Amino acid sequence: MGCGASGGTAAQFARKTDRKAAITVFEKGKYPQYSKCGLPYAISGDIPSFDGLIEFSEEWFKKAGITLHLNTTIEKIDTKKQVVIAKKGNETFEQSYDSLIIATGAKPSIPPIQNIQENGKLVGGVHILRTIDDAKQISSFVKKGKKATIIGAGLIGLEMADCLHKKGMSVTIVEALPGVLPNTLDEDMREIVFGEIIKNVALHLNSLATKIESGNGSITKVVIKNNQTREEKKIDTDLLIIATGCKPDVALAKIAGCEIGKTGGIIVNEKSETSVKNIYAVGDCTEYKDFVTKQPVLIGLGSIGVRQGITAGTNAAGGNYKLPTGVLQTCTSEFFGLEIAAVGPTTNHMQNIPIVSGKFNGLSLPEYFPSGKPISVKVIAHQETGKILGAQAVGFNAAQRINTFACAILNEMDVETFRKLETAYAPPIAPTLDAVTLACDVVSLKLARRK
Amino acid sequence: MGCGASGGTAAQFARKTDRKAAITVFEKGKYPQYSKCGLPYAISGDIPSFDGLIEFSEEWFKKAGITLHLNTTIEKIDTKKQVVIAKKGNETFEQSYDSLIIATGAKPSIPPIQNIQENGKLVGGVHILRTIDDAKQISSFVKKGKKATIIGAGLIGLEMADCLHKKGMSVTIVEALPGVLPNTLDEDMREIVFGEIIKNVALHLNSLATKIESGNGSITKVVIKNNQTREEKKIDTDLLIIATGCKPDVALAKIAGCEIGKTGGIIVNEKSETSVKNIYAVGDCTEYKDFVTKQPVLIGLGSIGVRQGITAGTNAAGGNYKLPTGVLQTCTSEFFGLEIAAVGPTTNHMQNIPIVSGKFNGLSLPEYFPSGKPISVKVIAHQETGKILGAQAVGFNAAQRINTFACAILNEMDVETFRKLETAYAPPIAPTLDAVTLACDVVSLKLARRK
Repeated sequence: MGCGASGGTAAQFARKTDRKAAITVFEKGKYPQYSKCGLPYAISGDIPSFDGLIEFSEEWFKKAGITLHLNTTIEKIDTKKQVVIAKKGNETFEQSYDSLIIATGAKPSIPPIQNIQENGKLVGGVHILRTIDDAKQISSFVKKGKKATIIGAGLIGLEMADCLHKKGMSVTIVEALPGVLPNTLDEDMREIVFGEIIKNVALHLNSLATKIESGNGSITKVVIKNNQTREEKKIDTDLLIIATGCKPDVALAKIAGCEIGKTGGIIVNEKSETSVKNIYAVGDCTEYKDFVTKQPVLIGLGSIGVRQGITAGTNAAGGNYKLPTGVLQTCTSEFFGLEIAAVGPTTNHMQNIPIVSGKFNGLSLPEYFPSGKPISVKVIAHQETGKILGAQAVGFNAAQRINTFACAILNEMDVETFRKLETAYAPPIAPTLDAVTLACDVVSLKLARRK
Repeated sequence: MGCGASGGTAAQFARKTDRKAAITVFEKGKYPQYSKCGLPYAISGDIPSFDGLIEFSEEWFKKAGITLHLNTTIEKIDTKKQVVIAKKGNETFEQSYDSLIIATGAKPSIPPIQNIQENGKLVGGVHILRTIDDAKQISSFVKKGKKATIIGAGLIGLEMADCLHKKGMSVTIVEALPGVLPNTLDEDMREIVFGEIIKNVALHLNSLATKIESGNGSITKVVIKNNQTREEKKIDTDLLIIATGCKPDVALAKIAGCEIGKTGGIIVNEKSETSVKNIYAVGDCTEYKDFVTKQPVLIGLGSIGVRQGITAGTNAAGGNYKLPTGVLQTCTSEFFGLEIAAVGPTTNHMQNIPIVSGKFNGLSLPEYFPSGKPISVKVIAHQETGKILGAQAVGFNAAQRINTFACAILNEMDVETFRKLETAYAPPIAPTLDAVTLACDVVSLKLARRK
């Protein structure tokens, strides 16, 4: 149920595992599997068309022998008879199952902003970004010289800000918390990103959007209020994008009786099984343990959803596939010419763990080689064991550098071993000692001093 | 003894470890610590001047309180008295030591080519590339439209070929073995590199240079002979560069009585100690165990030499620093627009180990995102344990991808775990499933089929 990245991947891997299984996918939207993460880049034009986002077409599913019902909702799940009741238009039909995979995703949160809705609908020019249709609507408002405001300075908010800025719009970002990317980077790493952002767009931190003004059914201004100074500002706005996060859509899971965790997501194990027999769940509607803190976290990354999809699809079709005991939440993004990446919890998310951290700011190439680009790497390790718990990078090739730390965390490697890692060196490619090992040197020296 | 990257680094880390120690460096050449690996890029002009290669100047050493004797050779080592006899010009002097670090590097091998020398010197236009002076001499022969021949298609040979090609020379490469980069890449991975090379320069495989023709003391032609067809060819040549590898310079180590291994390098342990008390050795003059095969290998990479320098310098000054139990030989290079990287032994170097390998050819970005660049990753794993033993990559960000495998090999991670690694994903940066994990998928499926 659900043909997003996680659900679609699950169907594919069920097919790979059992060539003869009868596989049916129900999707309430009108599109087959497409990339949600690609939406900002279809708006910016980096991806030439919205259709280009479709990764697996209806025809693909047909060829794979997978029955795909678009525009179809699930009305009921009978876990005893193992049957679901689906509705497509006015038609209602039954589908029995041996295994059921819930991939219902998440719903965007709409913050309580005065006048944001008129007659139960968002005011013209106010948008969320979740589906291709959302993106198409946003596109119709993207015009050079016009003004856009984005609520939320998380990954999607910043990606959208960059895209709209590139399209020649005048962009303002409004963030309730005191820093950008609050769930991704530590305060000191955010500073680097902050510096680049404010060169390009306006940024209001500690600020909430409180009210919308509109004329002829379309937004004209958004009123924001600073949490600390209580100061209010009116920002002229032709396009308002809400990027304040999502809530897992667990309505169907509740009908099926699946246990919901304290984060609000469906609880799944390393085989992507829910608490109900023969029912799996994958993607943004689920929660899973964080590898480091062992605490449940909501799955909000497509990369994890796809891996859960592989797991559930394989297992549902009789295979045996297990994920690691927790998620690393490796992530990356790029905006305003900066690549950022992170893995593991931020310092704020590790308040019950004794940690030591170290940072190295250097260049991507040896100092004597021109054209090296800045790279900053921060490593967080356990104060007693020295084990690497998290890492963050901003700058050139941040993502691939963070992948090496993802590998280290999964292996419970300590900084003392990592700092001696033989990294690849060649003058036009990387320095003899890469920022990844040098950041570990800093942590290692701090740990030695404590002993 | 020796102020290359390894020796110079050793001196620096001795100073970092003990702020008061008396540290003396003897260097037979006239330059303080500079980057040998950067030489091709000073010839190509990527690095604007030869002086730019000097990483640590005489003044730097002075400020660090390290006595640096340039143009100085060591005549004798008395390991009982712990004294060396040095000679600078006509002056001979004694220097006592508590710890001695040998960093004498390696000497280029000159293949037996007829007429390569005249009066005991290389014919004009025939060069090795080992020192700044070699590079300066080569530079004087670099002229657009002139013809260069390079003997040896290893990393340095190919880097030089690219550099000279960029400078507008007509370049021919001659390699005795049937493939390029024989010590770095497997045959199937070399094919990709081969394709790019022959678009740009002439390449003769299975071929030995047998004879040189010269006029007025300068080379005019080189005669090459195919190993297999016995066919001979004459190649017009204004500049011949010999890049057929090096032999460790162990003359001083032998005087000191250090044990020499079967590769011809000085045997050192994980503390960079030789068999003689209080004598360490680092860099290209040493051999150390390969992490995977446990067999001794000659150290030929600056990155390893520097890590040995850190180790020996720290230990010699009273610290305690140990390297991992073997070297991974992580390496990278770039030529003709291709980035290549590798870690661990090639298939040819693992003939006594049962292995399975898998390869994935893909793009650096999701398929729906334009401008993704080709990347090929090959992974070699142990047939029984599934442990990753080696990896090779050609294409975009090959080096950073290989660093993740270096981390995996050092942790003795198996392909089954690696394939599930959560890599960083964002449409403009990397696909949901990176080539690094997909290559492990291929190996994992092969392993499963064998069971």
